[in-house]
Amino acid sequence: MDTGRLAERLAEAGQSHLLQFWDGLSPEEQTELSADLESMDFKEINGFFKNAMEVSGHSKAEKVDSRMEPVPREVLGSVTRDRELLKAWEEEGLLRISQNKVAVLLLAGGQGTRLGVSYPKGMYDVGLPSHKTLFQIQAERILKLEQLASLQHKTQCSIPWYIMTSGRTMESTKEFFSQHNYFGLNKENVIFFQQGMLPAMDYNGKIILESKGKVSMAPDGNGGLYRALGTQKIVQDMERRGIGYIHVYCVDNILVKVADPTFIGFCVKKGGDCGAKVVEKTNPTEAVGVVCKVDGRYQVVEYSEITLATAEKRSADGRLMFNAGNVANHFFTLSFLQDIVNTYEPQLQHHIAQKKIPFVNTQGQLIKPDKPNGIKMEKFVFDIFQFAKTFVVYEVLREDEFSPLKNADSQDGKDNPATARQALMSLHHRWVLNAGGHFKRTRGDCRARRQPEVNILRSRIQCMVAGLGGHSYHLSAYRKPQVNVQGLKDGTDLPIKCEISPLVSYGGEGLEKLVQDREFRPNLVIDLKGVHELVKNGV
Amino acid sequence: MDTGRLAERLAEAGQSHLLQFWDGLSPEEQTELSADLESMDFKEINGFFKNAMEVSGHSKAEKVDSRMEPVPREVLGSVTRDRELLKAWEEEGLLRISQNKVAVLLLAGGQGTRLGVSYPKGMYDVGLPSHKTLFQIQAERILKLEQLASLQHKTQCSIPWYIMTSGRTMESTKEFFSQHNYFGLNKENVIFFQQGMLPAMDYNGKIILESKGKVSMAPDGNGGLYRALGTQKIVQDMERRGIGYIHVYCVDNILVKVADPTFIGFCVKKGGDCGAKVVEKTNPTEAVGVVCKVDGRYQVVEYSEITLATAEKRSADGRLMFNAGNVANHFFTLSFLQDIVNTYEPQLQHHIAQKKIPFVNTQGQLIKPDKPNGIKMEKFVFDIFQFAKTFVVYEVLREDEFSPLKNADSQDGKDNPATARQALMSLHHRWVLNAGGHFKRTRGDCRARRQPEVNILRSRIQCMVAGLGGHSYHLSAYRKPQVNVQGLKDGTDLPIKCEISPLVSYGGEGLEKLVQDREFRPNLVIDLKGVHELVKNGV
Repeated sequence: MDTGRLAERLAEAGQSHLLQFWDGLSPEEQTELSADLESMDFKEINGFFKNAMEVSGHSKAEKVDSRMEPVPREVLGSVTRDRELLKAWEEEGLLRISQNKVAVLLLAGGQGTRLGVSYPKGMYDVGLPSHKTLFQIQAERILKLEQLASLQHKTQCSIPWYIMTSGRTMESTKEFFSQHNYFGLNKENVIFFQQGMLPAMDYNGKIILESKGKVSMAPDGNGGLYRALGTQKIVQDMERRGIGYIHVYCVDNILVKVADPTFIGFCVKKGGDCGAKVVEKTNPTEAVGVVCKVDGRYQVVEYSEITLATAEKRSADGRLMFNAGNVANHFFTLSFLQDIVNTYEPQLQHHIAQKKIPFVNTQGQLIKPDKPNGIKMEKFVFDIFQFAKTFVVYEVLREDEFSPLKNADSQDGKDNPATARQALMSLHHRWVLNAGGHFKRTRGDCRARRQPEVNILRSRIQCMVAGLGGHSYHLSAYRKPQVNVQGLKDGTDLPIKCEISPLVSYGGEGLEKLVQDREFRPNLVIDLKGVHELVKNGV
Repeated sequence: MDTGRLAERLAEAGQSHLLQFWDGLSPEEQTELSADLESMDFKEINGFFKNAMEVSGHSKAEKVDSRMEPVPREVLGSVTRDRELLKAWEEEGLLRISQNKVAVLLLAGGQGTRLGVSYPKGMYDVGLPSHKTLFQIQAERILKLEQLASLQHKTQCSIPWYIMTSGRTMESTKEFFSQHNYFGLNKENVIFFQQGMLPAMDYNGKIILESKGKVSMAPDGNGGLYRALGTQKIVQDMERRGIGYIHVYCVDNILVKVADPTFIGFCVKKGGDCGAKVVEKTNPTEAVGVVCKVDGRYQVVEYSEITLATAEKRSADGRLMFNAGNVANHFFTLSFLQDIVNTYEPQLQHHIAQKKIPFVNTQGQLIKPDKPNGIKMEKFVFDIFQFAKTFVVYEVLREDEFSPLKNADSQDGKDNPATARQALMSLHHRWVLNAGGHFKRTRGDCRARRQPEVNILRSRIQCMVAGLGGHSYHLSAYRKPQVNVQGLKDGTDLPIKCEISPLVSYGGEGLEKLVQDREFRPNLVIDLKGVHELVKNGV
């Protein structure tokens, strides 16, 4: 194989080391490596590296604190503070959906590394009674919303679903959807595309080899979206379909309200071209970025970029001043995305993520470092907020809408399969209570007073008190819905289970006819086939 | 042994089954059982049972929702909303302490059953670098506060520490304090007393035997305090010492500000006879009781006593309407406690806690039930709020003041040794930052951007950018305090450690001279011997 031209390009770029093991590679390995390298634009990559390092240095050197302002009330919508407007926003959103103007875009390029799996996160089953994967839950929410909008406006509508994968997740994701018949969605309305990859580099700007014949590559961050929207002609596809509004979200949030009509309606009515859904940050040291204004432009400021004093600042009402916690859940108009792709994207610099990157040393041995030894370059999906003409922010409740799956089950108990599962079942449990259903408190159930094992057995107490010459009580008096306690345990010490198929209810609506004035075992599944009470936990 | 009289009393009380194995007991067992039974007032116990069942039936039958009102703003003090008043409150509290008018009362009668240990919770070591127990941490806070008040008012003052144990924890607690020389406190100012015990009963009001010759006994709840204050002459001891104000708290909160002068000063200045420290409840389904008014009187309403609709109610500002989360942290005047002991305590009914209680069946076999099979009777420390003439509420920040130790380390990661340890070290870390100290960001440290493993190495970047023809940056620009991230990991994936001895600082004060403009390893211990940077994590 003639590597003359390639070697020359590498030499010009200061990346000649990539061929250091060339002579020891098999012909197949040589072909593969040479193809990988041929496809890379080293001048561009070196430029990315230099710019990213420079920007990173600048932004770290100049503290952003003094230039930050909180989101002003007039651009903020809140599910808790604007209750009287929610209905109108939802109607606006449903109208736009019924007009085929709304698409959703899923960021699913990451692999479940921290989760401890080697397949795309969307394929993860958190252990719900139905064993649905994240992909299926989201697909069914889209289906249901199409039905709701169609029904309300007596039309036939659809919500195209754009799914951004990466080089690592593309094939398995497509295959998974195909195997599951697109979960009932129209195949034409599920559009896969792929974000770019960039090589990992060491601190001297040298591209890292993960084996003698293979470059260490990583996706270019969820902000790689904007480049991919152009290169893969996704924006054109949206234009062709007549899309006006795009809801962008991240695959790992089990509670995500895909194409949330209230959020979309709010953004549309406010005339926003770019919007962010946020949850209230209540602890100054919580590891979440906040949406705010810096020098008059919106951006997300990470907790590592500000001083503790700024993070602890409070408004007169006692809330944190910078409390708009970013949850990777955004609204864009198509025209805004067009401007981004055509004009602004090339101006965005990569951020630097320092990582432990396995590499082969000059002796050809594979080393797995225990400290960061290099960087990956990433753009972030929120990097484009600064270009918005009318930026709007929509505040929702964390317990209703945000529970990300990031880690494997572990001792610190944060953002893992157990918390995701529990968050969904707690939400659905509350839906049942608010629709007038209630749960049996039979022997063995625990209705905690102060400790999980504490309980009142009403029937036994009734008998008892009667037996002791006391009064007898009407059972019905107990039958009002009671608070669902997060982590409430039943008599066998397992959490109460309640799962409602998205095909039955998108956001808690339409359950009255199924549950009102009914009493259920604390092990309830509601799907299109009906209402099922499971006899045993763990089923 | 003549059991005639005892048998007669048992027969009258319907508890004859307690002697069913009498003939098979050894003489020693007979002596012990008979002594235990002789000391019990069965008429009283049966009365407790009947009343508790009745009250429990009533209170469950009648929903409290419609009669609830939130805490009005005028009785509320808030660390976030009344910042301009905090200094004055603290000064008032320190003045009262300097006048020897303040005592603390620790509720430590519970055993660490859920925590998985067989000794009193206060003896637990959560794994801080110092390996101090909860008792030691609290003792040292008292010591420091005595010093601060004495210094400020040029007096010699002390804060008596009343420690309520139970039959199960009394001896081991006293021995532990004695072995540790009362952690530097004056032995005369540490007063142990013992709450009562009550037998466990089955649903038919029969006392349960845990073995053939032993009654199943349990402490009578943290509200057993009030009876014990009388029977053990604790109130008289307080009178003798000239105490005016008592801070009552529970042993399991590692962040507890023992005798918190700001809380005490607030209550005193407000003229309160009874006060509760609360943290904001932000999630409707959180398992915490809320302080509120019911029929015009203050009480704690448990999450199990109200409907979901009530728990989800919000004020116009978007906060939960019932958000004053009770954390077992109270203020009482002595005259209020005198009234309680002399007048009101006997009126309080026991609450019923349903439990799995090991018992011997009629064949004499020990059975460990897997479902609740009986009840324990308890009073709660907050049962007396209703008798307050001037009730006041003081709202503090959870991350600064409340992290209870309840469970063993486990997957759900709530209220366990890891969270307690982390809460304390996070607080101390913030103290260092706010006092002008900062932490080194050397190779191997991780300053997360979006993921724990993400990092910026400033020195390397500086070299790099310089090498690529970029700028060089002033290191000093990085040296402002940065946000301490909860759970922030260092290069070896362990949380950053920072522990400050209470003997050095009670609440973050006085650290400037030790830390200002200094840069520390992320493994910092500050105690009376000085400032120590540990080289390795895990030391």
